[in-house]
Amino acid sequence: MRGEDEIIRHLRRRFPAGGRVRVGIGDDAAVLAGDAGRDWVVTTDLLVEGVHFVRHWQPARAVGWKALARSLSDIAAMGAQPVAALVALAVPAGTPEAWVKDFFDGLALLSRRFNVRVIGGDLSSAAQVVADVQVLGEVGHGHALLRRGARPGDLLLVSGALGLAQLGLLCLRHRVASVRPLLKRAVRRHFYPKPRLKLARALRRYRPTALMDLSDGLSTDLHRLCEASGVGARLEAARIPTVNLPPPVARRFRTSVLDLALHGGEDYELLFTLPKSRAARLSPTLAGSKLTPIGEITRARGVVMVDAEGLRMRLKPQGWDHFRREG
Amino acid sequence: MRGEDEIIRHLRRRFPAGGRVRVGIGDDAAVLAGDAGRDWVVTTDLLVEGVHFVRHWQPARAVGWKALARSLSDIAAMGAQPVAALVALAVPAGTPEAWVKDFFDGLALLSRRFNVRVIGGDLSSAAQVVADVQVLGEVGHGHALLRRGARPGDLLLVSGALGLAQLGLLCLRHRVASVRPLLKRAVRRHFYPKPRLKLARALRRYRPTALMDLSDGLSTDLHRLCEASGVGARLEAARIPTVNLPPPVARRFRTSVLDLALHGGEDYELLFTLPKSRAARLSPTLAGSKLTPIGEITRARGVVMVDAEGLRMRLKPQGWDHFRREG
Repeated sequence: MRGEDEIIRHLRRRFPAGGRVRVGIGDDAAVLAGDAGRDWVVTTDLLVEGVHFVRHWQPARAVGWKALARSLSDIAAMGAQPVAALVALAVPAGTPEAWVKDFFDGLALLSRRFNVRVIGGDLSSAAQVVADVQVLGEVGHGHALLRRGARPGDLLLVSGALGLAQLGLLCLRHRVASVRPLLKRAVRRHFYPKPRLKLARALRRYRPTALMDLSDGLSTDLHRLCEASGVGARLEAARIPTVNLPPPVARRFRTSVLDLALHGGEDYELLFTLPKSRAARLSPTLAGSKLTPIGEITRARGVVMVDAEGLRMRLKPQGWDHFRREG
Repeated sequence: MRGEDEIIRHLRRRFPAGGRVRVGIGDDAAVLAGDAGRDWVVTTDLLVEGVHFVRHWQPARAVGWKALARSLSDIAAMGAQPVAALVALAVPAGTPEAWVKDFFDGLALLSRRFNVRVIGGDLSSAAQVVADVQVLGEVGHGHALLRRGARPGDLLLVSGALGLAQLGLLCLRHRVASVRPLLKRAVRRHFYPKPRLKLARALRRYRPTALMDLSDGLSTDLHRLCEASGVGARLEAARIPTVNLPPPVARRFRTSVLDLALHGGEDYELLFTLPKSRAARLSPTLAGSKLTPIGEITRARGVVMVDAEGLRMRLKPQGWDHFRREG
């Protein structure tokens, strides 16, 4: 099987947009023309045991929270307002009823925070837990924020710090039950990611030329943004906001803060581009999130990373890809 | 784990309807108030390998077709017009790319037939194939057909003949590659069920008091309709439209045509109720489907079946239930 992105390219040709479908396959969410000056934004996200989470590590509430958070983050990435959710859940036969209830409790916690109504779903059994959550959102006619408008010369920016969720995953994988506040925060972020809905709506005012959420890691998602826009990017390694991980811990985890930031998934921060003129008006903090310029969009395709010494290297996608297998 | 219906009751209390949510958890699909005199109808349906289908029996095209057909049938059951679909698909690592393409080919075939646009989705890996398809449909404001309005004295009717899809499943299970036209038709029905979209919309004119699709078998689904409406039903066994199965084949499969009709799932025919005055105006065939009165709604709760000799027995739900386990 080739990579996920290639399958998606095939499907985009197979099921093109057009008519009432303003945005079809390939962006964070699809956009359907509605009536009365509003568009509908819809998305669906799978959360699979053993792929996206390990059941023995993750409380059921965290699984339910994250199942919804992934879809809400897609709605945020379109600058839209979430309205309602459908939840499909398959669990192995013999799963304790308490697990299912806790799953929905975690999901309900997040849904209340953003006033999203759970309006339906489906239940089944399966060999492993599989959750699929759809969210329907609204946005003013033609106002959805897409991936496809980045232009050469635009600044590339990111919200928050990158790599925290991946650090949390490493803590769980290495069985580090640390009292260090950073590691506790990292595990919490891995369990309960926060969709940047308020931030995305606040950013709409600045008319980002492209915007998406970081679900599969900066190195993978930046390539997606560039491909959708038909451009490339130059990334400045020293400017990427990383987590403040002490070197001994990084060594123990066999990682670096830059690796975490580049290739760690599930931060659900926002990656976006702005013409420099509009970027100049942007405050460094918006809706509680720090905003950091990390590079520039280029006409030349591909992503080049420049390190602190000025060395240039080509950055390949190394985030999550559910289909790619080593050839 | 208690039965699926009990979990759904719990979730209906946890996530009640209200506000823009005209119909929440518990009907065939949810209804969301839209603008400009239209409501949105949304549904999601899981199709799980080993639960809903066996991969070695079923061509990938049939799996893709059925994944969409299940959701379209829910949209039909609301009397709505489907507009767009999202497709989440998880497959085991190493699944041939051709399988994935064939899956989407089968799905595309059905989507074109009903002019449904595939606008997005998600891909992942999993231990077994899991497909989850959401469909968004439209219906005039307040015109969705619900399960909850059946009243004592209403006639209970069903479309088509029941048990054909289950007979197809038995053919596969017993490895009967028959040349009998009936069995070939049964396997085809099991593989490529037909959502009754045209029929449901034609029925809207007669204002059914309750309507739903038969996905889990008449014995299970009729209980759901009765519970939603707060009524019971008297079913006349002799009037239930069954398949015309020769007794030797029935014996070989250890079943009867009545068992197939009562407890076989996946016929995706429509079950509905009408006041007798309006039923009298109904033609016996509508939109190509035969319509058969099979009983009457009663004030007394529960479902009673009367056989050809006038013997009454209580009918229990024995269709599909993904969570119930023998206590």
